[in-house]
Amino acid sequence: MCRNKVYLIGAGPGDWELISVKGLKQIRRADVILYDFLAAEELLRFAKKSAEIICVGKQDGMHLLAQRRINQLLYEKAAAGKSVVRLKGGDPFVFSRGIEEALFLRKKGIDLEIIPGITSAFAAPESFGIPLSRRGKFTSLAVLTGRKSNKEKIDAPKADTLIYLMAVANIKQVVEALVASGRSIHTRCAFIEKATTGKERITSGRLSNIIKKAEHYQVRPPAVFVVGEVIKYARLIHAEKFKNR
Amino acid sequence: MCRNKVYLIGAGPGDWELISVKGLKQIRRADVILYDFLAAEELLRFAKKSAEIICVGKQDGMHLLAQRRINQLLYEKAAAGKSVVRLKGGDPFVFSRGIEEALFLRKKGIDLEIIPGITSAFAAPESFGIPLSRRGKFTSLAVLTGRKSNKEKIDAPKADTLIYLMAVANIKQVVEALVASGRSIHTRCAFIEKATTGKERITSGRLSNIIKKAEHYQVRPPAVFVVGEVIKYARLIHAEKFKNR
Repeated sequence: MCRNKVYLIGAGPGDWELISVKGLKQIRRADVILYDFLAAEELLRFAKKSAEIICVGKQDGMHLLAQRRINQLLYEKAAAGKSVVRLKGGDPFVFSRGIEEALFLRKKGIDLEIIPGITSAFAAPESFGIPLSRRGKFTSLAVLTGRKSNKEKIDAPKADTLIYLMAVANIKQVVEALVASGRSIHTRCAFIEKATTGKERITSGRLSNIIKKAEHYQVRPPAVFVVGEVIKYARLIHAEKFKNR
Repeated sequence: MCRNKVYLIGAGPGDWELISVKGLKQIRRADVILYDFLAAEELLRFAKKSAEIICVGKQDGMHLLAQRRINQLLYEKAAAGKSVVRLKGGDPFVFSRGIEEALFLRKKGIDLEIIPGITSAFAAPESFGIPLSRRGKFTSLAVLTGRKSNKEKIDAPKADTLIYLMAVANIKQVVEALVASGRSIHTRCAFIEKATTGKERITSGRLSNIIKKAEHYQVRPPAVFVVGEVIKYARLIHAEKFKNR
């Protein structure tokens, strides 16, 4: 591990054991660790006793000022000769502001290493037995955001499988965009909450009824919204995880 | 670890240290390990001395018969009371035949645990400083296959960033599909070979010249083909990795 360097590490989807061996190694060595709410807190017990641990509280809906403060903190700690770990939920470069942190640090001349993580976009469906593709049948997949600034339209590209992050609050607009793009209201879809943790839960249905189901079961972030016929495999793989959902 | 069970584990994109802590734990405990060429062989040294290790040689272009034989082997070993690890390159459910293995085993009543891995679709661009999205700018991404059976058309959905797996042999058809879908020939694109190994290499250009560049630099599988303006960040993050490529 190097001083004057920032390790931008993906903590994975929730279960702390899904971090990479490489990521955990750097957590053990770091002088300073900045982490988000979405990164598994169990990982912090691997830090050195002398390590400075800072919760930057980053979560769905944070403010711009806080991001600037995170950038600045990362810079100051690294410039002061520390080896710094920036621990983010999921993967640092997949629907994350990791790239903003990376660009800021590089502009300041700080060395950087990006250690990828398992994204919840994939791990969430997988943990319920939903594959992201199947050879010759479902061969295109897209990852999208369910939240757009300035009332921009939600993306609903022509792909066999769609995975929306941050879609809970905007599920009506997401379903509207999907139907407007030509998708049948009978298309299978599912919300997966708190994937790979002990509290994971699936709420599955069709585009026609998922809004009501999400209300009924009080679906809350963080959740991943999966759309597509690949969902049909879930019960074949993990029937026990469904229980009337 | 349980006997009579198969652990379908993603080994990650190439660097053995990018496997999850959870995946490595099961490799250490397994009675039998079936692995692909694409999974990092360094991982096998963590196996028990008594473990039976079988290379099933799965790679781009394998035959159906071999897949059947793999399914059968997994079944036989698990049914014989062994704890079986099936180690696959990348992630077992992302453009992989993991789902076919999983369905076969579940139909036979074999217990299954899916341990996700870091997909090369994301780790390859990231390792060269290419993010998969950027807030408010590049907010949709798609993962696709560059190889279709029966002369089906290559998918080129409307997403800001496209990532093709298995595109080396079919790069002409992929570029044709992209241009036919309305993408400018000036769109940035890059091939990334052997990502996260010591032999990683990037060949970047535009849709207009990438075919010639790929020929000139003799791009070979396994490689990931990335399309989109997110590539522009790469030199800002990792200028040293480019060197006239």
